[in-house]
Amino acid sequence: MSSIGTLLRVTTYGESHGKSIGCIIEGFPAGFQVSEEEIQKHVSRRRPGQSSITTSRNEEDRIVIQSGVQNGIALGTPICIMILNLDTRPGDYGFRAIPRPGHADFTYKAKYNVNSDSGGGRASARETAARVAAGGLCLSYLEKLGINIVAWVQSVNIHSIPSPRLYTRDEVETLGCIHKDSEVLNTRCPHTETAEKICELILRSKSEGNSLGGIIRCSISGEFIKEFKSLNSMLGFAIMSIPSVKGFRILEAQDNIVFEVAFKPVSTIKIPQQTVDWQGQSTVLECKGRHDPCVLPRAIPIVEAMVGIVLMNAYLELNSLRD
Amino acid sequence: MSSIGTLLRVTTYGESHGKSIGCIIEGFPAGFQVSEEEIQKHVSRRRPGQSSITTSRNEEDRIVIQSGVQNGIALGTPICIMILNLDTRPGDYGFRAIPRPGHADFTYKAKYNVNSDSGGGRASARETAARVAAGGLCLSYLEKLGINIVAWVQSVNIHSIPSPRLYTRDEVETLGCIHKDSEVLNTRCPHTETAEKICELILRSKSEGNSLGGIIRCSISGEFIKEFKSLNSMLGFAIMSIPSVKGFRILEAQDNIVFEVAFKPVSTIKIPQQTVDWQGQSTVLECKGRHDPCVLPRAIPIVEAMVGIVLMNAYLELNSLRD
Amino acid sequence: MSSIGTLLRVTTYGESHGKSIGCIIEGFPAGFQVSEEEIQKHVSRRRPGQSSITTSRNEEDRIVIQSGVQNGIALGTPICIMILNLDTRPGDYGFRAIPRPGHADFTYKAKYNVNSDSGGGRASARETAARVAAGGLCLSYLEKLGINIVAWVQSVNIHSIPSPRLYTRDEVETLGCIHKDSEVLNTRCPHTETAEKICELILRSKSEGNSLGGIIRCSISGEFIKEFKSLNSMLGFAIMSIPSVKGFRILEAQDNIVFEVAFKPVSTIKIPQQTVDWQGQSTVLECKGRHDPCVLPRAIPIVEAMVGIVLMNAYLELNSLRD
Amino acid sequence: MSSIGTLLRVTTYGESHGKSIGCIIEGFPAGFQVSEEEIQKHVSRRRPGQSSITTSRNEEDRIVIQSGVQNGIALGTPICIMILNLDTRPGDYGFRAIPRPGHADFTYKAKYNVNSDSGGGRASARETAARVAAGGLCLSYLEKLGINIVAWVQSVNIHSIPSPRLYTRDEVETLGCIHKDSEVLNTRCPHTETAEKICELILRSKSEGNSLGGIIRCSISGEFIKEFKSLNSMLGFAIMSIPSVKGFRILEAQDNIVFEVAFKPVSTIKIPQQTVDWQGQSTVLECKGRHDPCVLPRAIPIVEAMVGIVLMNAYLELNSLRD
Repeated sequence: MSSIGTLLRVTTYGESHGKSIGCIIEGFPAGFQVSEEEIQKHVSRRRPGQSSITTSRNEEDRIVIQSGVQNGIALGTPICIMILNLDTRPGDYGFRAIPRPGHADFTYKAKYNVNSDSGGGRASARETAARVAAGGLCLSYLEKLGINIVAWVQSVNIHSIPSPRLYTRDEVETLGCIHKDSEVLNTRCPHTETAEKICELILRSKSEGNSLGGIIRCSISGEFIKEFKSLNSMLGFAIMSIPSVKGFRILEAQDNIVFEVAFKPVSTIKIPQQTVDWQGQSTVLECKGRHDPCVLPRAIPIVEAMVGIVLMNAYLELNSLRD
Repeated sequence: MSSIGTLLRVTTYGESHGKSIGCIIEGFPAGFQVSEEEIQKHVSRRRPGQSSITTSRNEEDRIVIQSGVQNGIALGTPICIMILNLDTRPGDYGFRAIPRPGHADFTYKAKYNVNSDSGGGRASARETAARVAAGGLCLSYLEKLGINIVAWVQSVNIHSIPSPRLYTRDEVETLGCIHKDSEVLNTRCPHTETAEKICELILRSKSEGNSLGGIIRCSISGEFIKEFKSLNSMLGFAIMSIPSVKGFRILEAQDNIVFEVAFKPVSTIKIPQQTVDWQGQSTVLECKGRHDPCVLPRAIPIVEAMVGIVLMNAYLELNSLRD
Repeated sequence: MSSIGTLLRVTTYGESHGKSIGCIIEGFPAGFQVSEEEIQKHVSRRRPGQSSITTSRNEEDRIVIQSGVQNGIALGTPICIMILNLDTRPGDYGFRAIPRPGHADFTYKAKYNVNSDSGGGRASARETAARVAAGGLCLSYLEKLGINIVAWVQSVNIHSIPSPRLYTRDEVETLGCIHKDSEVLNTRCPHTETAEKICELILRSKSEGNSLGGIIRCSISGEFIKEFKSLNSMLGFAIMSIPSVKGFRILEAQDNIVFEVAFKPVSTIKIPQQTVDWQGQSTVLECKGRHDPCVLPRAIPIVEAMVGIVLMNAYLELNSLRD
Repeated sequence: MSSIGTLLRVTTYGESHGKSIGCIIEGFPAGFQVSEEEIQKHVSRRRPGQSSITTSRNEEDRIVIQSGVQNGIALGTPICIMILNLDTRPGDYGFRAIPRPGHADFTYKAKYNVNSDSGGGRASARETAARVAAGGLCLSYLEKLGINIVAWVQSVNIHSIPSPRLYTRDEVETLGCIHKDSEVLNTRCPHTETAEKICELILRSKSEGNSLGGIIRCSISGEFIKEFKSLNSMLGFAIMSIPSVKGFRILEAQDNIVFEVAFKPVSTIKIPQQTVDWQGQSTVLECKGRHDPCVLPRAIPIVEAMVGIVLMNAYLELNSLRD
């Protein structure tokens, strides 16, 4: 993704270690009260360094609205939101002598014949912060209409919530927080027993330099749900554009829409991996950067944001078709 | 979907029982030798009435190229392909007193406040014939470049190919053909033992007026695979736009791309179903139309077509970014 | 143009001498009462062979709605309108040994390396009939909202309406009709005195095998005019996509929007023209086809149609931005 | 405009007195050597405060590339260019008690029901700086291909270059510079005699608090010109999106493309104007801000930039259609 949407169009920019990342939101209705804090909350949930089970990079991810909002009111003009890149340690990300297996490094060079010498360029997860900013604004808009979007960690590796139900965002933020020594580790799995198992697994994986996949579940509830045209198709587009997502499945589409997103384990791990170098020769790779042992807890706001963008676009389209 | 793609843009039109269905393909490169027969082959594979295990409606689905091709050569101008709707028995599809559960009938009325009195309007699978025509043209183009796309039935209900491998299109067309009395029933499951079980299950389901879901697997192989940008995202969009698809999962993305598509059972069945009428009152629904007991065998060319459109668009984009 | 618009998207197809020409209109609101006759009226005004001062090709230009309308009501699904190509005499249009000066023949071959052997392919004015069909539908929609779009011939060559004012469509159709022997020649210049001079000039030009340029003026009036966003820009796009248009100028944008469109003389004329052949050698060209000595009278519905499409799209966008 | 283009897509953001203005350029080919200085040169030519005959606001307009370029090489990812808004004196632009006649103030409020309390919001010419940045990058790309785009002031009010010819960018920058006392006034009219008359007229207009319209001419020359598809249409879109442009006319489209753009006088003038207030009551308006007595000299790089964006997009499309 660099653009998504028709009536509400979100265009993102930014590499992981450039000057800034950000987005332009076109088509956002004038007159809506925009809360910078609310957008910030969404973006902060995605931020690394929140707890021991996420990467320890300390990107502050402070959003700044550049245009389209005046005195807290949307002007109807394009809204640009920017996030400065502060904590960049290029040493950790220096030009890769060996492309990471399962990662876009190799593809990227093949496609552009350009070496992005840090952070995997566009292919990195960093750009998703800009999507969360845009999506956060959409989520606020939809909440005012009575449409709620909540995602949570359903399973990590072999551990899964035994008898699934729907959760509120509050439950997701609190029930899955595990107290470990003096730290609070937020799994975003709102079934505490499962959350504890997941937490343990992630910490072990981290100490081993390995990574874990799993499943995020997301529910959409509210009045207009049944009317949304081409929602499946646009959801498929949006969800499959999230880095490391490998699958997408709709579980229910009656009163609520419930769907699942499958994430594969991230490919930047410390464990030595058998792979090929740029010339295609066999070699062994050990990654040194600070990376997530499990992206799922931080991917929650990304999933919600992508759904927010798709749904708000669908809502505006629906409105435009009504006389 | 009514439009998909950026450089190669496919726009479809047509309800199940209007005058015709069809598509306009914009951006198709001039000079390519277009074979009407090859497109026809793809469309005919999707056609109902091919064997006892598919619906017995006899839509001939003869394609006619209206523009953009002269003496078999693409002109570089929009290519319009039309398919007349011949066998329409509106009686079977008369205005529905009761919306079908799990079907778009209810949604459709809510959205447009219009009763499409036959065939479920846009929401029917009929429009997919136009996609197969457009996709078939793309598949020819990609084959010339050495890119092959093959889909097959991996499982229906509880029966699944035991030790999966990749198949050729020839294998898909022949190995899964089951001889039953004087008929050939094409399951498009290329593992004969599984195909036999599936065939039996579908025939039983048909006699009971029930329907079955399952999984289609698809492989993409060839030289350029690794270079395609935003393929996941566009595949998600395209695959999730196929009626009755509920999930999409990438299994492999190294030398080949292999993915799975999950289909739910179709909702137009003869078995009495507990449901609600347009006013929301409880009632029982028995459908009378001729419908598929299992859409998977006929969905194979649809999946291939959608992948063909997405890949050809990605290939043209890739080319345009190269100096 | 083959596509125009965002919310209301019109995609056209068709070469002058293929099977048919037509369009798909996406995003047209459900529930609107579609009058096939009203669309036909617009298309018939563009048709050749209406009077002695237009080309005598007798293309009947009968529109047929293929989809998106049921019992006269728009379904909210894509509306496809088709016009069969009946009177094609390929002899008149056989492969051009010499590209016409000022025409797209040369460009077309350079671009696509394909010889469209009749009617100049996409570059011909024939495809505009499909636009008039789509635009005619939009004009009906806008009229219901109280928005009126009227175009007329302001000048041809040196003859110009002396003291310009705004006209109604009725005035355009009646005041400029000149009775000549037993024929009625419709100049669509609603100032009778000027119309007579124009008529005489066109007939002379026709007998000489020459062609004439001129200016069409168009007014947009109604309630919403002041609110339309990016209208200038989209009008520029739409108007400049009409074959043989060379300029576009806004005269007034207060209570009404009034603008002018400048047409150059058509380049397919019988008078011998000094030009170059496909190899770039100097040569002399005499065209044999039946062509218009002056396109302006027939271009009136094309200008109105393009404005109709642009305005309806703008209206739907405006609506979608309102809470 | 906030977005333009298909393969090369430019999206702009920014109000005149927000934090920054800028653009995202999607689809720019990887590997191209991007010169920040060259882009800066284009932007600086548009800057106010260059000489006595332009507005004296001192916006420094320093561009900063945020993404998509590394070590001077385009990465193939979206390029974001930002320009900080430094010299904002909101006092001069405080909420308008009276909407300016011929300006978008009234329209803007009608549309969005939001008062943009400074600089006229989106409708101001400030946002064009972002377009010049994007267009400047495109002009560099096209120059490498041998395609040159040059615009100049052809006339202001009654003064016009007597025997028109084509000019180089160097001639435009030097021949029209008039030395007046100790100042150099750049008219960008490369016919010195006419430039002197224009200069005098503008200075008088400035002292009177009035404003002047005129005509810019632009030539496109180089190898590929003849092949560009839908250039007229996209040029019409791009040129008509420049604030205060009222007309567009193609003069020649053979070896070179030459066209003219007509600008109306700006509506923010000090001379008392008879107008209506927000409630529709008659009143008199005197504007106090620092504004251009004639926008044409500063509009030269804007016209060139818009042509650059359109042409580069057309070039990439052309390329993508070639096998």
